[in-house]
Amino acid sequence: MSSEKGFVKEITNMEDDFATWYTDVVRKAELADYTDVKGCMVIRPYGYAIWENIQKELDRRFKETGHKNAYFPLFIPESLLNKEKEHVEGFAPEVAWVTHGGSEKLEERLCVRPTSETIFSTMYSKWIQSWRDLPLLINQWANVVRWEKTTRPFLRSSEFLWQEGHTMHATEEEAMKETLKILNIYSDFCEEFLAIPMIKGRKSEKEKFAGAEATFTIEAMMHDGKALQSGTSHYFGQGFAKAFDVKFQNKEGKEEYCYQTSWGVSTRLIGGLIMTHGDNRGLKLPPRIAPVQVIVVPIAMHKEGVLEKAADLAEFLKKRYRVEIDAREEYSPGYKFNEWEMKGVPIRLEIGPRDIENGECVLVRRDTGDKITIKMTDAYDEIENVLNDIHNNMLLSAFNNRQANTFMASNMDELKNIYENKQGFAKAMWCGSRECEEKIKEEVGISIRCIPFEQENLGDKCVCCGNHADNMVYMGKQY
Amino acid sequence: MSSEKGFVKEITNMEDDFATWYTDVVRKAELADYTDVKGCMVIRPYGYAIWENIQKELDRRFKETGHKNAYFPLFIPESLLNKEKEHVEGFAPEVAWVTHGGSEKLEERLCVRPTSETIFSTMYSKWIQSWRDLPLLINQWANVVRWEKTTRPFLRSSEFLWQEGHTMHATEEEAMKETLKILNIYSDFCEEFLAIPMIKGRKSEKEKFAGAEATFTIEAMMHDGKALQSGTSHYFGQGFAKAFDVKFQNKEGKEEYCYQTSWGVSTRLIGGLIMTHGDNRGLKLPPRIAPVQVIVVPIAMHKEGVLEKAADLAEFLKKRYRVEIDAREEYSPGYKFNEWEMKGVPIRLEIGPRDIENGECVLVRRDTGDKITIKMTDAYDEIENVLNDIHNNMLLSAFNNRQANTFMASNMDELKNIYENKQGFAKAMWCGSRECEEKIKEEVGISIRCIPFEQENLGDKCVCCGNHADNMVYMGKQY
Repeated sequence: MSSEKGFVKEITNMEDDFATWYTDVVRKAELADYTDVKGCMVIRPYGYAIWENIQKELDRRFKETGHKNAYFPLFIPESLLNKEKEHVEGFAPEVAWVTHGGSEKLEERLCVRPTSETIFSTMYSKWIQSWRDLPLLINQWANVVRWEKTTRPFLRSSEFLWQEGHTMHATEEEAMKETLKILNIYSDFCEEFLAIPMIKGRKSEKEKFAGAEATFTIEAMMHDGKALQSGTSHYFGQGFAKAFDVKFQNKEGKEEYCYQTSWGVSTRLIGGLIMTHGDNRGLKLPPRIAPVQVIVVPIAMHKEGVLEKAADLAEFLKKRYRVEIDAREEYSPGYKFNEWEMKGVPIRLEIGPRDIENGECVLVRRDTGDKITIKMTDAYDEIENVLNDIHNNMLLSAFNNRQANTFMASNMDELKNIYENKQGFAKAMWCGSRECEEKIKEEVGISIRCIPFEQENLGDKCVCCGNHADNMVYMGKQY
Repeated sequence: MSSEKGFVKEITNMEDDFATWYTDVVRKAELADYTDVKGCMVIRPYGYAIWENIQKELDRRFKETGHKNAYFPLFIPESLLNKEKEHVEGFAPEVAWVTHGGSEKLEERLCVRPTSETIFSTMYSKWIQSWRDLPLLINQWANVVRWEKTTRPFLRSSEFLWQEGHTMHATEEEAMKETLKILNIYSDFCEEFLAIPMIKGRKSEKEKFAGAEATFTIEAMMHDGKALQSGTSHYFGQGFAKAFDVKFQNKEGKEEYCYQTSWGVSTRLIGGLIMTHGDNRGLKLPPRIAPVQVIVVPIAMHKEGVLEKAADLAEFLKKRYRVEIDAREEYSPGYKFNEWEMKGVPIRLEIGPRDIENGECVLVRRDTGDKITIKMTDAYDEIENVLNDIHNNMLLSAFNNRQANTFMASNMDELKNIYENKQGFAKAMWCGSRECEEKIKEEVGISIRCIPFEQENLGDKCVCCGNHADNMVYMGKQY
């Protein structure tokens, strides 16, 4: 037990300092590391394996709904970025500029893509001629760069990995349907794979994407009560299509501008995983995304037959699950227990001489700490049940946490009172004015996260100005 | 037949102008397109699907041999690039420099990675302490940038996609074993999936990677007789480890520098596919890498039941193969045949009213043009045999082309004579001097591609100086 305590002690308690707890987990669990380039991180193999699992499942869902992958250039000429006015105003302050190739100064500066609407639109205007070319549904998995002042691994870094879908449609209706279809894919994926319950809704005019007509978002509550914007899907109308001349001939032979969408999720989701599920022992990974679902730890390895039996079991389970065996001689079982708990592995199987005699092994759950003894012959099927139960339990915990930390406010005093004493989300009515939105930001320090699709009846008076309000909104502090 | 001819006519004959034939195929088959950024291309969905298949199979082989994926930053500070002298001399002339973030000038310029030895080595020096941390076997799939003067889609572009593996080892022997293991993975993959036979060998001192102790290569012959360097694997010894202070404590408790390797293949392989297998009808894709392995074309679609039956067949075959059905109403079968031939799909299945009556369909091979009629009930199994046969036939054709265009030379006159009249590879003895290597380059316009592992006895006199020579080399013009 002493090594166990010693080991966990290195992670700051989340109640003491949530931000330090977060970076402790990121670094101790070897998810990511800092580099010599300000704001740029290395995603280490354990963290990248999570991203690979995210990619695999999302990519499957994108392809299932008719999207294809492609790859567009990293560099965007300054003149191209400048074509859509709101877009350039939103992004120019935070882009990295390439000015030299080798020893020569470039004639025109190139920005490292912060997002790729401009270059997609340029190519689409070449590729699209007729209604037969629509819808055009392309996604790319890529790195993007936004020159951030304050950075944090996974949550906000100068370079990050993401996917960006860019689609063109013949009608407004179809484009809007696509925008919402993708939002649902994101939300379903987060609940079914990351065990993170999402609030789906629309961003306010102030918070929408630079150049979009409407931005839709999925918002999650982290363990400290703050909101994480976890994915966005944008409806562009014909704005970019007009700026970039993306036209098609409709079935009646008439030229029209296309209707456009774009949407993305990023490695930020890994930050969301950490902050939704983690605890003071470290990471806690939902089973369907965990790089290692089952860790087999042999006990009393020096005893004859133990290592062989444990290895046999691990090999057998590998046919169905992501399994590793920890046969390192230089560490005690207690040390290993701690390390794999810290790395968030959902199930630990302990197997020692007496277990082998009885044809059993001990199964320990990361989420509850529960230990059960099971027949080795039952392990193959039983693990599936336990993994599903862990997933459901983690999703429910996250949901309960959000419910317990969501409060209603009907006026500014109530709103201020919430954030003086607590963290979390506030539900309140809002009149829709930018003025009230900014006043709330200024006086309470929170922002409107979204106008949720699921509205509740909280009266019809704006929490800020008291005037008529049609919409209930979620507010909170954000990452 | 008239539309067929009209269609193919748009591709330049390779005998007339190989370079134009190449770009015609790239653009007509929608593999890639040019962009507004000089030297940067868009990889379009059909081209990217080939890359995804390459990635999937190589990634499987890397993981099977113990490698893990990670992601390292895009930007490398100038001071880091400067740490290894030969390396910076090799790469500095062709890197893109970021000088500004938003509106602020950076304190230190950042180069956009041309390759990542420097940043991997920096992190490895933090992560590696003891022999227990070795070997460290990490790969990344990433974009890199090299500011090229003359560019061509897939073959040489300012930005390209690749994988780069970077490994650290406790001994020279182990590192060299890794270097060659990867070369074999590359070579096996190219033969087994791309149907391209490779010559494996070592690069001369002049041609090796900047900073490496030894570079190993796989070289392929293209249809025009030129060589394509298709993948390289480098042995670094302790050079970078010393420059970046990557040390470990060995089992005896003594500090030592690590032994290092790196290795990569890129989207260039797609260029290799095109130029090895293509013909005047367009692309010809090896079955195991083709995004569409079987295209089903219904004939006389307006006749009752044809489309349904064709769709049923396509759905059934999809359980085992990558299949699409071309049910476009606005194009004739002849047009479709041409288009899918141009896109290189290995098998076309034609299915019309009479075929349906007889329970048959017509199978047409892209490689030979052979047509056979098969029972629809046999298609599910038969296609596997045909795809394998196509693969073997394409590999053999490429091999025969290489054999037929490889010539022996024992002196400079013979060597010059070869390249006055023919293209292809020359096999010759070489004394190993840089002087002869440069003279051959200057006088014949060819370079030493590699010192192949499979040596042949061609005497012991250098083709250039006539002095004693131990090594047979392959020479040729290169892409």
